Amino acid sequence: METTNRRPGLSHPVELKHVRLNDPYWQSYVELVNDTIIPYQWEALNDRVPDAEPSHCIRNFRIAAGLEAGDFAGLVFQDTDLYKWLEAVGYSLTNKPNGDLERLADEAIELLASAQLEDGYLNTYFTIRNPQARWTNLTDCHEMYAAGHLIEAAVAYYRGTGKTKLLDVARRVADHIDRRFGPGERQIQGYDGHQEIELALVKLYEATGERCYLELAGFLIDERGQEPNFLHREWEARGRTSYWNPGVVQSKPPAPEYHQAHKPVREQEVAVGHAVRAVYMYTAMADLALHNDDSELLEACRRLWANMIGKQMYVTGSIGSTPHGEAFTFDYDLPNDTNYSETCASIGLIFFARRMLQVEPKGEYADVMERALYNTVTAGIGLDGKHYFYVNPMEVWPAASSGNPGRHHIKATRQKWYGCACCPPNAARLLVSAGQYVYTSNSNTLYTHLYIGSETELELSGRNVRIRLESGLPWNGNASLEVASADGSGSFTLALRVPSWSAATTFRVNGADEQPVIRDGYAYFTRDWRSGDCIDAQFDMTPRRIYAHPQVRANAGRVALQRGPFVYCFEETDNGAPLASLSLPADAELTSAWDESLGGIFVIEAKGIRTVAANEIDASLYRGDPPVRTPAKLRAVPYTMWGNREHGEMQVWIRES
Amino acid sequence: METTNRRPGLSHPVELKHVRLNDPYWQSYVELVNDTIIPYQWEALNDRVPDAEPSHCIRNFRIAAGLEAGDFAGLVFQDTDLYKWLEAVGYSLTNKPNGDLERLADEAIELLASAQLEDGYLNTYFTIRNPQARWTNLTDCHEMYAAGHLIEAAVAYYRGTGKTKLLDVARRVADHIDRRFGPGERQIQGYDGHQEIELALVKLYEATGERCYLELAGFLIDERGQEPNFLHREWEARGRTSYWNPGVVQSKPPAPEYHQAHKPVREQEVAVGHAVRAVYMYTAMADLALHNDDSELLEACRRLWANMIGKQMYVTGSIGSTPHGEAFTFDYDLPNDTNYSETCASIGLIFFARRMLQVEPKGEYADVMERALYNTVTAGIGLDGKHYFYVNPMEVWPAASSGNPGRHHIKATRQKWYGCACCPPNAARLLVSAGQYVYTSNSNTLYTHLYIGSETELELSGRNVRIRLESGLPWNGNASLEVASADGSGSFTLALRVPSWSAATTFRVNGADEQPVIRDGYAYFTRDWRSGDCIDAQFDMTPRRIYAHPQVRANAGRVALQRGPFVYCFEETDNGAPLASLSLPADAELTSAWDESLGGIFVIEAKGIRTVAANEIDASLYRGDPPVRTPAKLRAVPYTMWGNREHGEMQVWIRES
Repeated sequence: METTNRRPGLSHPVELKHVRLNDPYWQSYVELVNDTIIPYQWEALNDRVPDAEPSHCIRNFRIAAGLEAGDFAGLVFQDTDLYKWLEAVGYSLTNKPNGDLERLADEAIELLASAQLEDGYLNTYFTIRNPQARWTNLTDCHEMYAAGHLIEAAVAYYRGTGKTKLLDVARRVADHIDRRFGPGERQIQGYDGHQEIELALVKLYEATGERCYLELAGFLIDERGQEPNFLHREWEARGRTSYWNPGVVQSKPPAPEYHQAHKPVREQEVAVGHAVRAVYMYTAMADLALHNDDSELLEACRRLWANMIGKQMYVTGSIGSTPHGEAFTFDYDLPNDTNYSETCASIGLIFFARRMLQVEPKGEYADVMERALYNTVTAGIGLDGKHYFYVNPMEVWPAASSGNPGRHHIKATRQKWYGCACCPPNAARLLVSAGQYVYTSNSNTLYTHLYIGSETELELSGRNVRIRLESGLPWNGNASLEVASADGSGSFTLALRVPSWSAATTFRVNGADEQPVIRDGYAYFTRDWRSGDCIDAQFDMTPRRIYAHPQVRANAGRVALQRGPFVYCFEETDNGAPLASLSLPADAELTSAWDESLGGIFVIEAKGIRTVAANEIDASLYRGDPPVRTPAKLRAVPYTMWGNREHGEMQVWIRES
Repeated sequence: METTNRRPGLSHPVELKHVRLNDPYWQSYVELVNDTIIPYQWEALNDRVPDAEPSHCIRNFRIAAGLEAGDFAGLVFQDTDLYKWLEAVGYSLTNKPNGDLERLADEAIELLASAQLEDGYLNTYFTIRNPQARWTNLTDCHEMYAAGHLIEAAVAYYRGTGKTKLLDVARRVADHIDRRFGPGERQIQGYDGHQEIELALVKLYEATGERCYLELAGFLIDERGQEPNFLHREWEARGRTSYWNPGVVQSKPPAPEYHQAHKPVREQEVAVGHAVRAVYMYTAMADLALHNDDSELLEACRRLWANMIGKQMYVTGSIGSTPHGEAFTFDYDLPNDTNYSETCASIGLIFFARRMLQVEPKGEYADVMERALYNTVTAGIGLDGKHYFYVNPMEVWPAASSGNPGRHHIKATRQKWYGCACCPPNAARLLVSAGQYVYTSNSNTLYTHLYIGSETELELSGRNVRIRLESGLPWNGNASLEVASADGSGSFTLALRVPSWSAATTFRVNGADEQPVIRDGYAYFTRDWRSGDCIDAQFDMTPRRIYAHPQVRANAGRVALQRGPFVYCFEETDNGAPLASLSLPADAELTSAWDESLGGIFVIEAKGIRTVAANEIDASLYRGDPPVRTPAKLRAVPYTMWGNREHGEMQVWIRES
């Protein structure tokens, strides 16, 4: 039953099992996931992490399966902790077999399968607490969201192990939903408050070839935002209550914008509402546009992408300007010290970007994918693999994080496992499946999007080809793509991304300079490639200054630093406090130097300025004496590494003087 | 029964009826209150302002008095709308008799008196809704707060008209509370969640000479923060509920910090919690320190003052860095675009400063009083007298006010009467009693704190003295204090404040230069003054730059402008948007010029810089090209006048380049 449904002409990711990562930088993350995060998360799922909030997750499944007495505990979507863990395990086993881990996962699958009901329904909250209330509060209760994560886990585990037990569970869940939801008279014309199942159903379709799953995804996507609004109808039907405020009759219905249900998705122009829900939905929209050759839906994806990336994204590839609803706000509103920028939202952004790359290989998609992956997603995970950021601020003043309620969401140190543990397992599943984001291919072209060292095997123009990518990134600007082997003969194309951050990129083929065709951020090399042929790329790694659009009030007069894919930041431990007193002269030279701290990094250094009080004795809050400028040695480190040393201030955008 | 209790040696404000304002600048505000605000607010109290939220206030009194059927409506402390209006009327009648207004007020007093119960209790919410629940939820329900405003109104109305009807009502309320609260076994050892009655009781003591009121104020002040905490005991006793969330059993008790009840007031070091409650309490503490010669309490006042003014006050004399609890946050946390800075809090700050001036005439108290009065309090009122700001931000981006939930409290335009109409009547009562803040005196010294043109009569060193103050402020830097008449002979002292904003202040006495003794911000002139003697003061009105303490992250690299008592701001209508793109070179000359806009003002102008995109076609959010600097004519207007022209951005602190 190994099926991958592809539309000819479009590109698709190379299957994970055919991509073997071999990259010094990413290998450490993959090992962190394999050796630390997956085992640690298993302990967390079983409530065995000391001093951390309990997950209750496994216990809920045991209770639902009748193996243990007790009540449900945790968030209504707590089941997804296990699903995301299983998905990560699926990828991990794809990369590297591990008998012990597989046995552990199989046991967990046995457990969750035993909690599935006869009709296919599977959700521990409703099974334990309120079986009669199934499918009556999709707005709040994440039932399809949880099912979506189950499906994603099932597809990953099936692809990684070939085992179908979990896939069968997931199919039964999907079939159940397919019976309950749809345009039919006895079906519910509705959708989940938290998008996720839509993209999962596309994966299930790709894995099984069953078109009904693709159609169900399409139904859920196109039903969204239709009038009369389902979220409002459902709210009326359940007596104007919310899961989150039990017993209270609400005066206002749920805000459809928050759920991206304010208008049909095809008509949406601007990214609004909860950021994670938005990007999960856009991902499914792109999937559907891809599989159904739906140009109208594609056009909506392009519009939403353009708004989000062109007007609402932080320089670190994060989204969500406000903690209120973990949401987008409006164009150019990118406050540095009150943003949300959830790790999960950047993960969803990567999903969306990869789908858009399949439709149209444009450098801007890969640039954003790289920006989010190298900066925000990895920033979410501490170097020890056991501490996490959910919120990824541009600026941190620890005293404000504790002392100003409007900044309480900005954590100055990474936290252990949360009660709402969405981000850690989400980051784990992405990192361990990073191989799925390096390449896409169609019948005759291999696109290299990310320069992550790896070997891959695929068919191009009917030839069996093995490609070896070696990369000095993220630290050094050299990469080579070697045709390690290629049988037969005939022309095919190797397309290499030209990163937008590289001011000058040069290519050599088999040692000779080459001026390839460059189109939309990709360099195209087409020939009758032979084993041993090699393309060498050289990127410009000079540290560079980045300025924000003048409409971004928060960054007027400020500059950010970037080197290669890394956006940098200033930390108190290197520069002293307050960081706000520092500025970078417009003409200061930026130098980069290798440093052994933080596991080995390039730091960026410059001669900067620190303003200090003209009169140190003067303690007055307001004074007439201008501050005095003194020299200061500035030192910036990659943003993704922040918060791994001493507790202190952090700042991405520095004043330019 | 005209008593004013005074402790010898300390200074006291000259009674309002002995101060006749005659000042072009303030006269317009006083007339606005008399001619527009008081009549408008009367309409509002009677729910007759079209398109504004109804107050319900008068109607509640009618229902409580049995004159009308119906239910209570509005906020639990809605009665105070009428009390603050009556207080303003009392001051207005003190300044200028007005038969029609007095008749209206007398009718309102008849009405409220008829709502008073036999035992003296008066509160329409509890009388209408739940008479059994009186004094069971002081934390939330503002019962004493409302009584305090009633007492303040009664004292003002009594002093303005000599009539005792309202004073009798207030005394019966105070006596009722005095029976219910105190150290006795059958009394409640508690206090109100919202301080206000404490300062009112001191006023009642001053007006009646009844020491029990002073003692009750002292009890309430010193009971606060004692353990076991009253707010927690009360919360337990009422079943862990809150007035604000009916029917919900809370998991956490009320936060004592919010109510300044986290420790005994004498031990408090730092201003915390709800800003208005804090300054009302500090005012009462200073009152009690003054009347009881209580040096320990005075020391606490000095500490709290120093913390608030030295570390938590905005440059416009406003306080409250966060909308969460309308509260202080922590030292040097003064965000410009998310602050609260409630108009009422600046009014309370003025109360506190005036009390401290009575204890110890130091320029810093008067400087803050002036800063708050000339900038924030008047900014709260539109030039038409019918539109109000409750929140007084340092920076406004209208799109963020509507599009970013963390900025929803920042209104870009003044609002009509609110449901919670605390600020408008509070500002009205302050403005119309401004005469009480100009001078204080003791037996032989008249202190002039504010340069507001006026005539005053008082006794100094046993002589009957009439003083005429003429002032060019806030626009021109000349003021003269003339001894208009003085009977008898003997030496007394005229002390004139030397404003901290004046870089050079000179004095002449009867036309001749004089170098007075200057102590703590006051110039002292002692002699056997004769009728016609005159002190001329000349203040430096050069526009000046102000810098914030280096620990204030929000203002690093920024500068504010001040001229005389006015802090200035930049508005979009004068400077274009985004204001963030503007900067003021460190060496740019500041010029001021008279301008007929906004009723006639001095504007501050300078040659500034506007940064614009290097490439206008480039719409990308992040770019490598630094912005280009172009000349820009900058124009700043007094902050207090902002928002009276076209809707747009506003900014106090501008980048210095």
